[in-house]
Amino acid sequence: MSDLPKRVTIDEEGPREGFQSEKKMIPVADKVRLIEALAETGLTHIACVSYVNPKRVPTMADAEEVAAAIRRKPGIHYSALYLNQQGLERALRGPLDVQGSVRITASETFSRKNIGKSVADSLVEQRMSLQTFKDRGMPVEWGVVLGAFGCNYEGELSTELILQRCRQVLDEAEMAGFQLKGIKLTDAMGWATPLSVERLIGAIRSKWPELEISLHLHDTRGTGMAAAYAGLRLGVTKFDASVAGLGGCPFAATEGAAGNICTEDFAFMCEEMGIETGLDIERLIEVAKLAEQVVGRQLPGHVMRGGTLKAAKQRAAQKAAA
Amino acid sequence: MSDLPKRVTIDEEGPREGFQSEKKMIPVADKVRLIEALAETGLTHIACVSYVNPKRVPTMADAEEVAAAIRRKPGIHYSALYLNQQGLERALRGPLDVQGSVRITASETFSRKNIGKSVADSLVEQRMSLQTFKDRGMPVEWGVVLGAFGCNYEGELSTELILQRCRQVLDEAEMAGFQLKGIKLTDAMGWATPLSVERLIGAIRSKWPELEISLHLHDTRGTGMAAAYAGLRLGVTKFDASVAGLGGCPFAATEGAAGNICTEDFAFMCEEMGIETGLDIERLIEVAKLAEQVVGRQLPGHVMRGGTLKAAKQRAAQKAAA
Repeated sequence: MSDLPKRVTIDEEGPREGFQSEKKMIPVADKVRLIEALAETGLTHIACVSYVNPKRVPTMADAEEVAAAIRRKPGIHYSALYLNQQGLERALRGPLDVQGSVRITASETFSRKNIGKSVADSLVEQRMSLQTFKDRGMPVEWGVVLGAFGCNYEGELSTELILQRCRQVLDEAEMAGFQLKGIKLTDAMGWATPLSVERLIGAIRSKWPELEISLHLHDTRGTGMAAAYAGLRLGVTKFDASVAGLGGCPFAATEGAAGNICTEDFAFMCEEMGIETGLDIERLIEVAKLAEQVVGRQLPGHVMRGGTLKAAKQRAAQKAAA
Repeated sequence: MSDLPKRVTIDEEGPREGFQSEKKMIPVADKVRLIEALAETGLTHIACVSYVNPKRVPTMADAEEVAAAIRRKPGIHYSALYLNQQGLERALRGPLDVQGSVRITASETFSRKNIGKSVADSLVEQRMSLQTFKDRGMPVEWGVVLGAFGCNYEGELSTELILQRCRQVLDEAEMAGFQLKGIKLTDAMGWATPLSVERLIGAIRSKWPELEISLHLHDTRGTGMAAAYAGLRLGVTKFDASVAGLGGCPFAATEGAAGNICTEDFAFMCEEMGIETGLDIERLIEVAKLAEQVVGRQLPGHVMRGGTLKAAKQRAAQKAAA
């Protein structure tokens, strides 16, 4: 029997991931409606917008407007993505919760395509952001390694390279006076398999046993849920996911880049295996259906169509009683 | 590091699963085209048709016609499903490969809904089929437990019940003079999670360590690939899957019943983890696209949209060389 965690935290990436990858502009009111509906499902962290260059990501040009319109519930972290100092400053001027972090991209080419900077330049620029966090007394607890499982531009990436990237974010944080408590491994290009998750987490843990790991997996090639299960088996308790499977990275160079693993599918799998998520899956399914209305097309989530086992059991019990 | 198998066999269920669950009638020529295209991908077992009551499954009314039209390649097992003696006799009159087996449904209600008979009656009826196999000198190597992971009509099913069902098929085969080499566990209603796969296989193995296990998993609730990975970790080497994720069971009582795990996604995951499948995934992707044309709608497969890593690596290498 595997040693699965008792509880996991699922951070919702749907609004940010989803709206950035849609081709058509989605009305602010619809974005806000989806975010507010997500806030009723038990989620404690909802990534709402990206403060990025509207020329590169036109569907995020309304980031300020969306952020201002959300009626925020206490106890929920409404986050915003920023990729550089300018984005951070926009985020800090807005009403959302800004989380300090150090980000590094695994491959040079994806770094240039995704954020328009070399790996080294992006670290240098983040020194400003780290100073900003320090000046404001904000904690910096997480490092992020982007595209940690492989690169559509460069191909396979060695474990040694990823360990070096972890070392670089740890060092950069330390130089600024912060000690990271964890590393988030992201896979916007959808290269992770259960085996590569095991290998990479194993390698990181043998070097830094005290570091927490968080996984941000995309289901581009159908391996997302299996890779997440591999993470669960290794005791990972922090995952990103997108309601209905919304999303995709506009700079991932994948034909039909798929979004994150689906929030309600992953939460359903966890709960069925006795892992608490704190989420109301029936409500999440309603929000997933709303997400389909908002983007105007079918999204990849499964349990929203198949129904939960709880619902199936209730129907079964009603039939037995009838 | 997990102890994954070196090689797995993936049996293709797409044509049978897919055509039985489509609402509209698909022309015989299209069915045959898909089956013949699948035969070029390295698959060694393709489930082509079901010899079932055309009143209950109208899209299989052309089973004889389809079976007759397939240009068969040597070395490939083109199979047909039958659910009773009448179906078996139709199958035996046709040109396809008939495999002897003993089938039992885990829940009484699903047995009545799916095959129109109680569990006990279906076993009694199979005595005729077993006699037929014996008379013809056909082997009977596999038992099948249908709906082994839970029931949309009855809810959760106990491990004890499933062990009893395994015992019943083993006994039934033995009474007819056959010793089963394995049990196939099917999950047309999509209840399996990685944990329930582990539990059930663990329980069966502790009782019958010599029995092989085969898994027929549906991705109704998004857990199919993770459940299959749990099977791989336990050394299961025989899986059913459907190209593009075609299919679904017409009698599963699931809103939007989803098909089997997707052949090319599962094969891709296996190959990326160093598990040989013998399949040409790029060709499978072409067939998956053909399957979408044939049914006239988007199917759930992922790697057909995301592309293989091999393709991504080749593009990356070409860019580096340019």
